[in-house]
Amino acid sequence: MSVLITNIGELVTNDPDADDLLGLRADAALVLDDGVVAWVGPATGVPAADEMVDAGGGAVLPGFVDSHSHLVFAGDRAQEFRARMAGERYAAGGIRTTVAATRAASDDALAANVERLVAEMRSQGTTTVEIKSGYGLTVADEARSLAVAGRFTDETTFLGAHVVPPEHDGDPAGYVDLVTGPMLAASAPHARWIDAFCETGAFDADQARAVLAAGAAVGLRGRLHANQLGPGPGVALAAELGLTAVDHCTYLTDADVAALRDSGTVATLLPGVEFSTRQPYPDARRLVDAGVRVALASDCNPGSSYTSSIPLCIALAVREMGLTPAEAVHAATAGGAAALGRADVGALVPGRRADVVLLDAPSHVHLAYRPGVPLVRQIWLRGES
Amino acid sequence: MSVLITNIGELVTNDPDADDLLGLRADAALVLDDGVVAWVGPATGVPAADEMVDAGGGAVLPGFVDSHSHLVFAGDRAQEFRARMAGERYAAGGIRTTVAATRAASDDALAANVERLVAEMRSQGTTTVEIKSGYGLTVADEARSLAVAGRFTDETTFLGAHVVPPEHDGDPAGYVDLVTGPMLAASAPHARWIDAFCETGAFDADQARAVLAAGAAVGLRGRLHANQLGPGPGVALAAELGLTAVDHCTYLTDADVAALRDSGTVATLLPGVEFSTRQPYPDARRLVDAGVRVALASDCNPGSSYTSSIPLCIALAVREMGLTPAEAVHAATAGGAAALGRADVGALVPGRRADVVLLDAPSHVHLAYRPGVPLVRQIWLRGES
Ligand SMILES: [Zn+2]
Ligand SMILES: [Zn+2]
Repeated sequence: MSVLITNIGELVTNDPDADDLLGLRADAALVLDDGVVAWVGPATGVPAADEMVDAGGGAVLPGFVDSHSHLVFAGDRAQEFRARMAGERYAAGGIRTTVAATRAASDDALAANVERLVAEMRSQGTTTVEIKSGYGLTVADEARSLAVAGRFTDETTFLGAHVVPPEHDGDPAGYVDLVTGPMLAASAPHARWIDAFCETGAFDADQARAVLAAGAAVGLRGRLHANQLGPGPGVALAAELGLTAVDHCTYLTDADVAALRDSGTVATLLPGVEFSTRQPYPDARRLVDAGVRVALASDCNPGSSYTSSIPLCIALAVREMGLTPAEAVHAATAGGAAALGRADVGALVPGRRADVVLLDAPSHVHLAYRPGVPLVRQIWLRGES
Repeated sequence: MSVLITNIGELVTNDPDADDLLGLRADAALVLDDGVVAWVGPATGVPAADEMVDAGGGAVLPGFVDSHSHLVFAGDRAQEFRARMAGERYAAGGIRTTVAATRAASDDALAANVERLVAEMRSQGTTTVEIKSGYGLTVADEARSLAVAGRFTDETTFLGAHVVPPEHDGDPAGYVDLVTGPMLAASAPHARWIDAFCETGAFDADQARAVLAAGAAVGLRGRLHANQLGPGPGVALAAELGLTAVDHCTYLTDADVAALRDSGTVATLLPGVEFSTRQPYPDARRLVDAGVRVALASDCNPGSSYTSSIPLCIALAVREMGLTPAEAVHAATAGGAAALGRADVGALVPGRRADVVLLDAPSHVHLAYRPGVPLVRQIWLRGES
């Protein structure tokens, strides 16, 4: 069934051929048909469609592409959050709390948690979401985590190299062997991507390289968590390997920035983490000014960033990271699509997926101008509302 | 019709007789009847009620009391916001843009805007809202602004002394005469409170004192905007006059803090403003540690803080202002009630108004732990959902 959307206050097309970053159109209408954008044109002289939608002057945007989340888990860490806000510093070790809860949970309980969070994301305008494993950390628990994730998205990422689990304390090399051997073998059928947390306290550059190489050998594309808690080798490694994306990028040297620019690797920034761990924000302005492509994602997880809200990430990117509202919206749509290597989402031009957000606000600026306000009025997912 | 709420994950009572700030109860149930809280007790042995509500393990809180907003206006200032985020500094003069739009708007248009924003607030858990005039700044426009506000709340505030309007440029004394004379006379029948913006560029202490005195003479209670953009005399004046509340309180001397403690004046903090103007946040920790009572409010207005989200204010108070989640929630409920001198809202103990919020989360901590996420599942207003 085709849908014609009229009375659009502002249409964000992200048309790469437009003169402005967002490809803004003021007097436009949009037709969705057969799951894709079928037509974009002036509000005068629209084609016929089965259904008419009056946008009431609201802005229409491509759905948000959240390229980084960890939704397969059990329990929460509200008490750890409360302690951190009272002065304790965030450390990656808290992940183990969630690992224990996740291992103890049934597949159904894990799926219910993912379903709840994906619904929450949808209600806030996210139409594509990447979901990682990484709280199982055994062969069986990683594989089932990815199988659960795969019920909700095609963008599944094997993150066995999230942290060394307690039963491998003092034996990180042995754990990397497990990750690159039987755990990868069991997980790869359920995954599109492979990822590693390359950070002091997690995995070093050689270990991350070994994990990505093993994944590549079985057809998984690589991405990395890197340079979140301090300077480190992860971003340089991502650029060297020409990865599609490297995520966090909070502590970067000038050489890291130049390497990202030269490799074309997308720097995915996750401001929910800095908000919820009270750490300094990454300098998005520096990256954009250097010609690095940036994405914004939620990193939704129960430890360091338990937000599912891309609108909040956009507001934080403007308030704290030096992006304009247009740059932040672009990073959360076209940027996220680039971070997943996806040419079919992130823009509203003919042929792209009909993943569409209608705001209760006249422009994309309001996503930053009206922080915390639930502004998403309606979404379409492959043309279905 | 009576309502029994069971299976509550955590009940925030704000019971002043409890040992902890929030009067938390773990295994409690709640009965609402005839518009008030009729019963609070253990989940075993609940009384009968006409309707049963299963809270599904969600937290139940008193509705938020937003004691500071400016909802009677027309137009928006998205372009000013965008310019400010690109480096321009916030100045009170931008208010004049909204004054021009408000004067040009019909009563119906102003009422529709208030209705939209009050609905938005409700959906985010606000059950009591104060609404100011202050974008009319003529006798007729202030009076009709308050008449419009009065359709939505009893907590109406006359803010003729918001800024000197263009037609009184160079004649602030003449404008104060207008405010304290015919404008007050026309506005007082529609207002409970009188307020002034005591700040460099707006009104000085003598002018603010004159405005509050004129209001007191016709039965209006006083409150002030003070010490937002820099140190100033407003907070000391508020304490000297024993006002119920003084709002902003970003720049305070030790003497200001001591004066607030001694007078019992509530310091209302408005972190949406600092978020959206990129100014330093007020130090809530310092105030609480000194024994000053604090409230959190949205300051919802189209210039400096176009958020209607008390959950965002709570998250910012924890992230940026040094409050614990419990202190922030208390400030947004019991604190807001104190800032309006209201003994009937802000707590869930027998006899208080049945203004209740049910969260899609097991505890109040999640309001800070899950920033930006729409966590309010249901509200009751005087017992009606
Ligand atoms: Zn992550
Ligand atoms: Zn105000």
